[in-house]
Amino acid sequence: MLIIMHPAASKEQIENVLAAIERQNLTAHLIQGVEQTVIGAVGDSHSIGKEVFEILPGVAAVTRISQPYKLASRQFHPKNSIFPLDGFSIGGEEIAIIAGPCSVESREQLLQTALAVRQAGANALRGGVFKPRTSPYVFQGLGEEGLEYLAEAREQTGMPVIAEVMSVAQVELMVKYVDVLQVGARNMQNFSLLRAIGETRIPVLLKRGMSATIEELLMASEYILSGGNQRVMLCERGIRTFEIATRNTTDINAIPVLKSLTHLPVLLDPSHSTGFSEFVASVAKAGVAAGADGLIIEVHNDPANALSDGRQSLTPEKFAVLVKQVKAVAEAVERRLAPIVH
Amino acid sequence: MLIIMHPAASKEQIENVLAAIERQNLTAHLIQGVEQTVIGAVGDSHSIGKEVFEILPGVAAVTRISQPYKLASRQFHPKNSIFPLDGFSIGGEEIAIIAGPCSVESREQLLQTALAVRQAGANALRGGVFKPRTSPYVFQGLGEEGLEYLAEAREQTGMPVIAEVMSVAQVELMVKYVDVLQVGARNMQNFSLLRAIGETRIPVLLKRGMSATIEELLMASEYILSGGNQRVMLCERGIRTFEIATRNTTDINAIPVLKSLTHLPVLLDPSHSTGFSEFVASVAKAGVAAGADGLIIEVHNDPANALSDGRQSLTPEKFAVLVKQVKAVAEAVERRLAPIVH
Amino acid sequence: MLIIMHPAASKEQIENVLAAIERQNLTAHLIQGVEQTVIGAVGDSHSIGKEVFEILPGVAAVTRISQPYKLASRQFHPKNSIFPLDGFSIGGEEIAIIAGPCSVESREQLLQTALAVRQAGANALRGGVFKPRTSPYVFQGLGEEGLEYLAEAREQTGMPVIAEVMSVAQVELMVKYVDVLQVGARNMQNFSLLRAIGETRIPVLLKRGMSATIEELLMASEYILSGGNQRVMLCERGIRTFEIATRNTTDINAIPVLKSLTHLPVLLDPSHSTGFSEFVASVAKAGVAAGADGLIIEVHNDPANALSDGRQSLTPEKFAVLVKQVKAVAEAVERRLAPIVH
Amino acid sequence: MLIIMHPAASKEQIENVLAAIERQNLTAHLIQGVEQTVIGAVGDSHSIGKEVFEILPGVAAVTRISQPYKLASRQFHPKNSIFPLDGFSIGGEEIAIIAGPCSVESREQLLQTALAVRQAGANALRGGVFKPRTSPYVFQGLGEEGLEYLAEAREQTGMPVIAEVMSVAQVELMVKYVDVLQVGARNMQNFSLLRAIGETRIPVLLKRGMSATIEELLMASEYILSGGNQRVMLCERGIRTFEIATRNTTDINAIPVLKSLTHLPVLLDPSHSTGFSEFVASVAKAGVAAGADGLIIEVHNDPANALSDGRQSLTPEKFAVLVKQVKAVAEAVERRLAPIVH
Repeated sequence: MLIIMHPAASKEQIENVLAAIERQNLTAHLIQGVEQTVIGAVGDSHSIGKEVFEILPGVAAVTRISQPYKLASRQFHPKNSIFPLDGFSIGGEEIAIIAGPCSVESREQLLQTALAVRQAGANALRGGVFKPRTSPYVFQGLGEEGLEYLAEAREQTGMPVIAEVMSVAQVELMVKYVDVLQVGARNMQNFSLLRAIGETRIPVLLKRGMSATIEELLMASEYILSGGNQRVMLCERGIRTFEIATRNTTDINAIPVLKSLTHLPVLLDPSHSTGFSEFVASVAKAGVAAGADGLIIEVHNDPANALSDGRQSLTPEKFAVLVKQVKAVAEAVERRLAPIVH
Repeated sequence: MLIIMHPAASKEQIENVLAAIERQNLTAHLIQGVEQTVIGAVGDSHSIGKEVFEILPGVAAVTRISQPYKLASRQFHPKNSIFPLDGFSIGGEEIAIIAGPCSVESREQLLQTALAVRQAGANALRGGVFKPRTSPYVFQGLGEEGLEYLAEAREQTGMPVIAEVMSVAQVELMVKYVDVLQVGARNMQNFSLLRAIGETRIPVLLKRGMSATIEELLMASEYILSGGNQRVMLCERGIRTFEIATRNTTDINAIPVLKSLTHLPVLLDPSHSTGFSEFVASVAKAGVAAGADGLIIEVHNDPANALSDGRQSLTPEKFAVLVKQVKAVAEAVERRLAPIVH
Repeated sequence: MLIIMHPAASKEQIENVLAAIERQNLTAHLIQGVEQTVIGAVGDSHSIGKEVFEILPGVAAVTRISQPYKLASRQFHPKNSIFPLDGFSIGGEEIAIIAGPCSVESREQLLQTALAVRQAGANALRGGVFKPRTSPYVFQGLGEEGLEYLAEAREQTGMPVIAEVMSVAQVELMVKYVDVLQVGARNMQNFSLLRAIGETRIPVLLKRGMSATIEELLMASEYILSGGNQRVMLCERGIRTFEIATRNTTDINAIPVLKSLTHLPVLLDPSHSTGFSEFVASVAKAGVAAGADGLIIEVHNDPANALSDGRQSLTPEKFAVLVKQVKAVAEAVERRLAPIVH
Repeated sequence: MLIIMHPAASKEQIENVLAAIERQNLTAHLIQGVEQTVIGAVGDSHSIGKEVFEILPGVAAVTRISQPYKLASRQFHPKNSIFPLDGFSIGGEEIAIIAGPCSVESREQLLQTALAVRQAGANALRGGVFKPRTSPYVFQGLGEEGLEYLAEAREQTGMPVIAEVMSVAQVELMVKYVDVLQVGARNMQNFSLLRAIGETRIPVLLKRGMSATIEELLMASEYILSGGNQRVMLCERGIRTFEIATRNTTDINAIPVLKSLTHLPVLLDPSHSTGFSEFVASVAKAGVAAGADGLIIEVHNDPANALSDGRQSLTPEKFAVLVKQVKAVAEAVERRLAPIVH
């Protein structure tokens, strides 16, 4: 860490900082500048908060040099992490496509959609059963009944299933039914939930919070990894900005940035990151061109009657077109789509 | 709701929308524009999601006219809600000041700080025992031990105590110890937690998420209110913007906007909304001048040795100066500080 | 336009709005809601500001239904605008690549870079001669001397040249030397400059302001188009958000959104939108996959000695790799790179 | 400056950086960390861009320690700058209130409003004659005719007048008519304009760009100051964020932050920073409580018929109430309103 002193910091304040550095078992290096002094604190500091130094009298600012995350970092684990799922893997050369409805609404809706997305080229099935809704007055998901339909859909299609977990209390139930737990954007910093998932051994899809920095996303993954659960996939799903033409702003930069910082697989959710079905295919292609390891896409057998997020859902027909287009782009960047289960 | 059709929408698509409006027991009104058609859907629509219409073929956009929240709205409850606490009340003419350390770190630290802030003019004591920390490697709070210290501090000072709850599992424990539950910014849309708190009858301080809109904050309060818990206080604590000179950007506009939209009390947390102790007093005064009903401020008996957020904590001496300054501003806007307990 | 009245609006206030609508030669349509009244104002309103109605007593909000821009809109001009330049065209099936240094620093630097980018596959040469720099104390560009080098580079390479114009006073000079005028992000709403350029007949590359909405970008283009200059190209160059891992956030959504709203060509500048040379190729590919009509990329023959923006400049070698990769993606989305001049 | 090397930087790359530091006449200090090396570059570096080092091979990041501005900084000029205007001064203990219409629309409108705001307590008159409008199709200001009305209003009321300058070509004309030139948010980084104003000796009100950082605002002022024009006043006018309940987000933090960094006077424009007349008074009071040296407020004798920004304009009656409220807050923070001219 670099500790930048105020121009007016006294000799005593500087010595006080040097003593604090020593107490943390770090080594101090002094740079006497023209206007101010900078002190480097050298040693393993990933478990030391910046505030330890920030609050010392005379300190103007503290800059962390090394990354505050460790298990997620590419420095710690240089090769890509590759997680096998049923019949395919995520994080390697193959690009996986997860598709399905925003919410599981009925047995029929789910099974129809599941068969349709499998036929169109999906590798896994998504479907929410506990729904985080802004309003308490609208449809909140089918709960355990929905989990049973997901299990049935897996049986019928052979595809692994993924659903969002919203609280610690749901974890135990959900791991019985689903292959991958999703942590939604609103819960990215629900640290109790992250710790509980860290204690399971089920793969996790961790979505970036709508105003979380890339570093905070990696720190959230560190909560899960440090619990011993190694199979974390990260997902860019759009961030909140001033632009109102789309529901969110797809941070496409995040894809190559994450791939450079971490060994974990990186997916893109172009349905949420745009919010409009007509822009999903363009942004899905962009994600794969930028280096994403997978896509998660909302598809509904009848979007006009969806109980949530219908505006951004694709019909199975449009999804099939998207898969073909994504396949061409994947090959252009020397990758390939994951094989479809049968 | 207003349903704006695409310029190219067909007659059939318009009729389809009219039928959907009828199915929702709303009444349709047609406006035939030069370029496009707009359809008004009149009736009680607060429990109908916009997506019901957004996904219909030919629909360009849907605008909600009436507010999506009800119990929180000033239309529903025109007078200010006033909640009595020990010896004072929040939401009326009195301005309450809640102060204390970011984290409860030890019995001694808490009791010293509690006595100091009471003497300086605080009405209630804050102190975190379960801490939401970005990194899993740093101090996470004392847990139940900290709650015991809070109870002891209340005993000794007579001040009500407030602490943050991070998960549904903690609610039962915490209501035994604290007078007010705080929901932190990162949990503002942790809907499981909001529902659980809605079922208690303990006052709640609900902090705005760092990228939550004012409407989303009101919708989050609606989750608690609709469970039957009427005593929700809202708290602006800074939003995330591009500006990096401060930790967050205090959305001072939010205070008069919230006061116009809701009957619930509105507080400001200038410690988090600025992130630097030297700016806290200026922004605290601004908050009261803008109409806030209270302040929540971090004070530490020894900020230089705080285990978290020391950079934004005031010493008891600086806090005492702040209280005097805030008192003068409160009187300038024809209010008064809440009386101090003895 | 839709005029939404306050719930408490009086009958007189509603009549006042109806009269105001009539004065603007629009026709009024009344929707009597349960809580409030909405009034549609039908007719050609693109030259009527929303504020005409917003400030009337009793009005809660005004929503514009039709687009506030006209000449730029796809409704007005359904087919793509295609602008021929030397040996290629922008806006059709071909994807154009503009490359060159951030600043023209010397004759040698420019000519070397120009030859290198042409060989690597660029279609046009960029190079700044008047530089908008945050600090008044750093290199501000070579001015007219730089324009002469650009002209010489065009002579030697056959490529059209593009440079940024910063003020009305420079327009006359620059049109003598360059083939395309660039309006930078900081000047996107320099309306005096836009009007001056609207009076020329030289093609323009209009960059999106760093916090401009897509609609504001289109309105800025409308200033130029309404002056009679039809050849406006739009350029996404990253927007300002809370994310600090990259210099800007590439709004990749803007590309399909703009292509749906306007007939004007849409380019992407991945150098500024990322700010780091190592992410430029990934985002360039994403832009083409998302539907961009061209790219503008910073290339420097010796980035380590560049006088500005070296951190985001590619070497000619890396640029040559990028062109090959972009070519593959272009073909995957059924387009092709523009032919290189000889 | 601190130059942070990549963990994998070679010995040769480090030596290369050391040589570059020497070439800039700075002195290098090496800190050998566990994972990476940091090099301090000590000396006067305010005229050296960070990019000089950022682009060197092996460099991960460069952090500037000293401020990139000099003439604007409080380190360079510790005491507040106080600028006398007609009968009052800005930057000292007095708080100045500038008021008037968004646009000068007619002689009668301006004179009526001018007399009304003087009577209500304004110290200076504002009024736009060249208007930066998003749309080319709406009212763009009266131009020189408007300047004549401003001069007449000054004659009649004794108040100094302020108007926005939009281009270099207007500077010469405007300095003949107005007492203070305003640079609008959209032109904050119109560097040609800033330089031209730097060469005049007329006071300037420099508004913060809607997505400009506090540092960029100070750098923009540095352009004017370095031209020799010392009388620059800064103005917070709201920044662009995700919040849509108000037109902009008032960055109230910016006021104490600016007061700590610079000696220049700092004003607040609550009309633009909120966008709704009903919130202007609350935020005006907040600004003064936070330490602002003045306010600039839109007042229109007949807001319902204003040609621009009527939604945020106050009537003279409401403005008079605001002045009284602001006076009370000013006194609560131990300041006073500037005396009114007679």
